[in-house]
Amino acid sequence: MLKFNYEEYVKTCHEVVNLFSNIEKVVDEVYNKGFQNIFFISSGGSVAEMLPLERLFKNHSTIPVFLENAGDIVLTGNKHLTKESIVLMASKSGDTKETVAAAKYCKTIGSTIVSLVGVQGSPLASLSDYVIDNHSKYMEHTFINMYVFAHRMLFNNGEYPEYTKFIEHIKKAAIKLVDSFEKFEPVAAKIAKDHYKDDYQIWVGSGTMWGVVYLYAMCILEEMQWIRTKSVTSADFFHGTLELVDETVPVFLIKTMDETRPLDNRVEKFINQFTEKGVIIDPKDYLPAEINEEIASRISPIVMAAILKRLSYHFESRTGHSLEFRRYYRQFAY
Amino acid sequence: MLKFNYEEYVKTCHEVVNLFSNIEKVVDEVYNKGFQNIFFISSGGSVAEMLPLERLFKNHSTIPVFLENAGDIVLTGNKHLTKESIVLMASKSGDTKETVAAAKYCKTIGSTIVSLVGVQGSPLASLSDYVIDNHSKYMEHTFINMYVFAHRMLFNNGEYPEYTKFIEHIKKAAIKLVDSFEKFEPVAAKIAKDHYKDDYQIWVGSGTMWGVVYLYAMCILEEMQWIRTKSVTSADFFHGTLELVDETVPVFLIKTMDETRPLDNRVEKFINQFTEKGVIIDPKDYLPAEINEEIASRISPIVMAAILKRLSYHFESRTGHSLEFRRYYRQFAY
Repeated sequence: MLKFNYEEYVKTCHEVVNLFSNIEKVVDEVYNKGFQNIFFISSGGSVAEMLPLERLFKNHSTIPVFLENAGDIVLTGNKHLTKESIVLMASKSGDTKETVAAAKYCKTIGSTIVSLVGVQGSPLASLSDYVIDNHSKYMEHTFINMYVFAHRMLFNNGEYPEYTKFIEHIKKAAIKLVDSFEKFEPVAAKIAKDHYKDDYQIWVGSGTMWGVVYLYAMCILEEMQWIRTKSVTSADFFHGTLELVDETVPVFLIKTMDETRPLDNRVEKFINQFTEKGVIIDPKDYLPAEINEEIASRISPIVMAAILKRLSYHFESRTGHSLEFRRYYRQFAY
Repeated sequence: MLKFNYEEYVKTCHEVVNLFSNIEKVVDEVYNKGFQNIFFISSGGSVAEMLPLERLFKNHSTIPVFLENAGDIVLTGNKHLTKESIVLMASKSGDTKETVAAAKYCKTIGSTIVSLVGVQGSPLASLSDYVIDNHSKYMEHTFINMYVFAHRMLFNNGEYPEYTKFIEHIKKAAIKLVDSFEKFEPVAAKIAKDHYKDDYQIWVGSGTMWGVVYLYAMCILEEMQWIRTKSVTSADFFHGTLELVDETVPVFLIKTMDETRPLDNRVEKFINQFTEKGVIIDPKDYLPAEINEEIASRISPIVMAAILKRLSYHFESRTGHSLEFRRYYRQFAY
């Protein structure tokens, strides 16, 4: 597989899985102290990674949750953000400017900050009441850690009694994602070959998958490949964006396995009928073995985040545009 | 002015303003009956028009609010949607398929439905507990009606004592928007001339203005002019989309006058530095006379929705692409 170190990946998976008990300890502690609501606050890709959690809680939990962009919240505030709030934040580097500013803001309010950071001792880590180790460079591991956080919270709240089985499955699935990669590899190569010269792509998704779609379009294709995209939810696709489609327009549908899959099916039918450049990616085709339907419906964003990263390498190898290159971001102050 | 009937517009403004007392009656009644939270549920442009309300409540109110796409909510549910919820819905035609389905869904739950509809006796009107007349064809009037709904609610909740002054100003401003149109007309003509051949545009905005930006890009430029767009918040712009910008890329910034204006200022600086195709539209330049700063910060989305509609006509006159033409939407079942 392109740019893939099997041993290193498996080793990292084991490290991630072995730290689940730390996440559980943090969640149990903040849950038992009592709280009013949960805020998900971060910037860019990190807050997009929290979108599935927001949807998950709204579908399955009576705990009030709020998702806020770090850049916004320090200016707008939110009347529900209080010292009784748990704030989940994430930053791989731990020094994302807006996120650090938001952490300082939350501290003045007295909220409890739990953060996922890749660098211990970083500014975000120092500002947090609890730190969850998130050092793996693989995006799917951030999703996994967030899903463990969320489901442990639901479990404590009596809203996910299947938690123990869930964790067992995730532990197995994490390493088995390698099988998903292998299955997706020729598909990724074909997609990159067919689409690396696209001047524009529409990306569509729904439910808990929406965050993955939004993130991939903005933080990978736009930021790392300079490919113009429009990302839109499966519901909104039919209220404007559809009119752009003709047989020459690339439309990518990333299907969810959760409740909103019927909305994706409608988009799929439309794509098959009106463009010759449609790409449908269904996590169902790439699920690690031994994952049952119920758990699959919860973890399909993890699987998708994992295999889409593989697609990035294939785009890179076709376009010759390094995934590492930036002309503005973190290059200088603006 | 292009495609503008002054007498008809002023007449419609008077009709809208004269119905404010009906909105107040509805709000007072549902407020006094008691409720747990407010849901904003609709499809496409109508739910985008509710985005400013969601932000407004989060910034200024302890009332819990939730915004849900009609297509999603019937599939996902939301644990906070109960018979104690007030649901605000909107559909100009009153027969938007997904919105009608969502109204039926809310009815089974027993929530109180308040809807803004343009057609009395339409399916949505029939399903609603309270109907607010929203027959004006001008988008700014939908915003105005929604803002009256929201601020009357805040007033009842002790969170907007300035309500009476606010309403007085809105009543005056509604008709004075004609002055804003006149001021914006040559600017709109120039923007359309410079940009009607664009193959792609980035649209940026923040805070209560984000809904206007999202709506305009998707429901006007994409749906009615088949111009490809990316709409992105001022905060997220710096986490991906910025990398697409060079001196040839059109970037439209629609500034807000609310708390998040500093985020827009940062985008403005970036645009001025890195593209020769930047367009900055600031509602401050087009405010109706006699509107003070505090009220301006609340109503800037109304002013912007109004003047952007003028821009649509200028795009239409340049592209020759009728704003009425659709190839898919409502043309057949898909």
